[in-house]
Amino acid sequence: MNWLDLLSEPEPGLDRTEPMYARITAGIRKAIQSGQLSDNTRLPTNRELATLLKIDRSTVSRAYLELSQSGFIDSHVGRGTYVRPLVQRQASASSSVGSASNFASSIDWLEKFSQSSRTCLDLISRQPAGTQQSDAITFAGGIPTEEFYPHDQFQRIVSQILKSEHSKEMFGYSAAEGSPYLRTQVKRHLKKHGIACGDDELLIVSGSQQGIDLVTNVLVDPGDVVLLEDPSYFWAICNFRARQARCLPVGLDDEGVRLDILESHLSRQKAKLLYVMPSFQNPTGATMSLPRRIKLIELANEYQVPILEDNFVGDLNYDNSALPPLRSLPGGKEVVIHQGTFSKALCPGLRLGWLVAPPEVTSRLLLAKRTSDLSTNSIAQIILAKYLEEGLYSTHLEHVRQCYRNRRDAMLNALSRHMASVSSDQSLKLSWSTPQGGLFIWAKLPDGLSARELLTFAEMQGVSFSPGDMFFLNGDHSEYFRLCFIQTEESVIEEGIERLARAMRSYFATVARSSLSEISGRARVRNNVLI
Amino acid sequence: MNWLDLLSEPEPGLDRTEPMYARITAGIRKAIQSGQLSDNTRLPTNRELATLLKIDRSTVSRAYLELSQSGFIDSHVGRGTYVRPLVQRQASASSSVGSASNFASSIDWLEKFSQSSRTCLDLISRQPAGTQQSDAITFAGGIPTEEFYPHDQFQRIVSQILKSEHSKEMFGYSAAEGSPYLRTQVKRHLKKHGIACGDDELLIVSGSQQGIDLVTNVLVDPGDVVLLEDPSYFWAICNFRARQARCLPVGLDDEGVRLDILESHLSRQKAKLLYVMPSFQNPTGATMSLPRRIKLIELANEYQVPILEDNFVGDLNYDNSALPPLRSLPGGKEVVIHQGTFSKALCPGLRLGWLVAPPEVTSRLLLAKRTSDLSTNSIAQIILAKYLEEGLYSTHLEHVRQCYRNRRDAMLNALSRHMASVSSDQSLKLSWSTPQGGLFIWAKLPDGLSARELLTFAEMQGVSFSPGDMFFLNGDHSEYFRLCFIQTEESVIEEGIERLARAMRSYFATVARSSLSEISGRARVRNNVLI
Repeated sequence: MNWLDLLSEPEPGLDRTEPMYARITAGIRKAIQSGQLSDNTRLPTNRELATLLKIDRSTVSRAYLELSQSGFIDSHVGRGTYVRPLVQRQASASSSVGSASNFASSIDWLEKFSQSSRTCLDLISRQPAGTQQSDAITFAGGIPTEEFYPHDQFQRIVSQILKSEHSKEMFGYSAAEGSPYLRTQVKRHLKKHGIACGDDELLIVSGSQQGIDLVTNVLVDPGDVVLLEDPSYFWAICNFRARQARCLPVGLDDEGVRLDILESHLSRQKAKLLYVMPSFQNPTGATMSLPRRIKLIELANEYQVPILEDNFVGDLNYDNSALPPLRSLPGGKEVVIHQGTFSKALCPGLRLGWLVAPPEVTSRLLLAKRTSDLSTNSIAQIILAKYLEEGLYSTHLEHVRQCYRNRRDAMLNALSRHMASVSSDQSLKLSWSTPQGGLFIWAKLPDGLSARELLTFAEMQGVSFSPGDMFFLNGDHSEYFRLCFIQTEESVIEEGIERLARAMRSYFATVARSSLSEISGRARVRNNVLI
Repeated sequence: MNWLDLLSEPEPGLDRTEPMYARITAGIRKAIQSGQLSDNTRLPTNRELATLLKIDRSTVSRAYLELSQSGFIDSHVGRGTYVRPLVQRQASASSSVGSASNFASSIDWLEKFSQSSRTCLDLISRQPAGTQQSDAITFAGGIPTEEFYPHDQFQRIVSQILKSEHSKEMFGYSAAEGSPYLRTQVKRHLKKHGIACGDDELLIVSGSQQGIDLVTNVLVDPGDVVLLEDPSYFWAICNFRARQARCLPVGLDDEGVRLDILESHLSRQKAKLLYVMPSFQNPTGATMSLPRRIKLIELANEYQVPILEDNFVGDLNYDNSALPPLRSLPGGKEVVIHQGTFSKALCPGLRLGWLVAPPEVTSRLLLAKRTSDLSTNSIAQIILAKYLEEGLYSTHLEHVRQCYRNRRDAMLNALSRHMASVSSDQSLKLSWSTPQGGLFIWAKLPDGLSARELLTFAEMQGVSFSPGDMFFLNGDHSEYFRLCFIQTEESVIEEGIERLARAMRSYFATVARSSLSEISGRARVRNNVLI
């Protein structure tokens, strides 16, 4: 089978009138219907087809997903992808209640999920497949590396707990609101951030992601409006979409969420939730200014819209410039649900975070917690409680703050040094943010260029990053990308940015071969996006 | 304040024309509106009012919840309950978008949860408050006690892991589908139950409750029909209700779910899920027969309704009579999502369970897992994996099976001995089930009597159990109750059942004072309920 001929597109990737995945979908469907591809024919793997067509594997995934959902092919992880036999295609096309067809080949009772999470699956397909080279340097993702996990301290703590009074709590059910031992320590920790909370205002959760899920569960019905920073945290967008919320974007400027856009949304419709990351936002690394924080709370009180403040990297500030959390500001106690985690500053495997909310909200969150998973695992809670009690977290924090600060500075310096020489053309410049904390630098190519195209060149050079479009509600803004600076040592950062500069040179050279008019034709109007 | 006078009911509990909580609600509301109870007056605590009125604390809780939701009072855990000041009552009565009222005193943005989870809160209010005596014996709940938790083995395992290659995995993110180490061990475990599953059919979850939540998330939209055994697992009912499913009951006979009722539902409407516990069901302890299992799968295939098979105590069979799981039977792979856990047979604090489903369903469950909490905590997964790998679980299981079998037999014997002498009146007999495994004995009072009334007498004698009405979809069937036999040693079981017999004598004596006609007036028609 000549796949290039089959998809009748000798040079895919140039014609931009129709998305690539749609053309692949249409091509394969036509070939199946015409009999060119016969029953049970094995299709190429994602990787094979992507290599052949010189496109991203996620594009092939999406095409295969569409074909699978419309009943033309069957995909099984590890077993390959095959043309579904005609008799089964006919069965699934006419599937109805009462038919005894195997549900693995009919998606009859998956219709709910197919409908409500279609957008979610689309989102997932935006995640790049990732580079495969063994010496590849990755600035993608945002996961603290194990070099900083407190193995030895945890080992000692576990041994001590197993001999102590807390041993009993370690393997039994924890209270749904969290272990009293850990709750005491988290309250002490929150006090340092200016947040006082009563026993009826605190809930321990299985990481930030569960916090988001519980808040959505309690506040948002299908069709309800959720407002969020655009761009925002990928898995928060997925969560809101999976709950069938109407997600509306609030653009950012250099002080944080734009209140004019926010108020324009709020004056037109009731919103059930505003989701923000005021400090060191994901993906932009930006921090909301103090005046903006104060005004935001006023507005939220005025319109009675609850704010979910995701303080996922609140402890990771590098310039002694930490701003007070929204919940600690005047009026904050009334409208802010505050969320935090130890996943980023300590280690993610504990799966521990917390929510602070008004008592009436907390009692509902507690009920949602119970229906979700009864309670949080006890072992991790007791280990963390003792770790906090012994004051080890403060020491740890000083250490990682210093390391991460150095890595941020190394990346900023490397960007300045290597990007200056990439092109003499002033219109071909990379710009980037200077975060005061957190994990990420946010970068922007000249308008009309594509971070996904750059990624192809970058992976050939052995470096990767997260394309920015996956963080936007509409999947647009292809010129942005996100660099995580905490995962790699300074020397590796230096090498990685040098590789990135080489990739940009190749990319710009390729682009230069196209006409200037084509580039400007691909440029889109800026839309309230930082940098 | 004379509360008995205020509620103008000298002998509450006798007049049964209106529910008690509604009379309390009405009495207090009237007193607030008339000024008899002035602004900021402190109301009695739940316990004080319950004692005073000689009613259950849950009844007071429900009345206070109603009053709080309608804006008449403010309750704060640990701070007490107060009459809301008039000015705030007026504000919340006229609350509208744009009002800047404090959300802690208005439930403006909680309306979603108030609506969708009202039934859920009603359910919660059915949980009894529990006895307070220090020497009380509890047959309520269903939690394995710490005497069987493998503390020492876990301690050794943790030390060894921290020095091994698995140390890295212990504190980082686990894969969303679960640690490969644990997945291998769970697959081995499942093989013993006759369930072979591929890598694309298995998902590790944070305990059974999360399994239920993910399946509901993937399959059930608000308004969709979920069929379940009636009675069923309390927190499963809560989960389906919180997701706004229409829950329809399928009664049980001594072979399991009644297929005639099931088919009558299925022939009239599309159901999105059937939730069953075929082995040692919660709360009845009943086991579905093999012929019934086979026919159930045929019916599910015919009507294309997926079955969630909750095998929560599959390992706890005491009579060498374990039946094959639904998923392992012919046609099972096509319609059954199989769920299991180590919470009951090993220890609950690990919060670990699994789902086995067809690949296309598993991929969706995986997505739901990611949006819920990204992944399961790593520490517990690695500990359990090594525990299973070393074959320690089999040894443990032999031990607890023997202990639990002895406890079941002790309770059955004690019931036979003590209940015979409770009353010479043949119409006043307790009946109970003889479970072949699991945690529970299901008991039934003569028609017209109430397990909640019995509980009041039982708590005075220092013994408690779970009233059966909380497990029924309609909250009816007050003559049933559930006894958990695994939590207490045989001598304590003996003593507890003796106390229960004393409580029954007092209860029956009280009932005897009422006229016989009243009792038969309170009897209701049996409705497809076991024993």
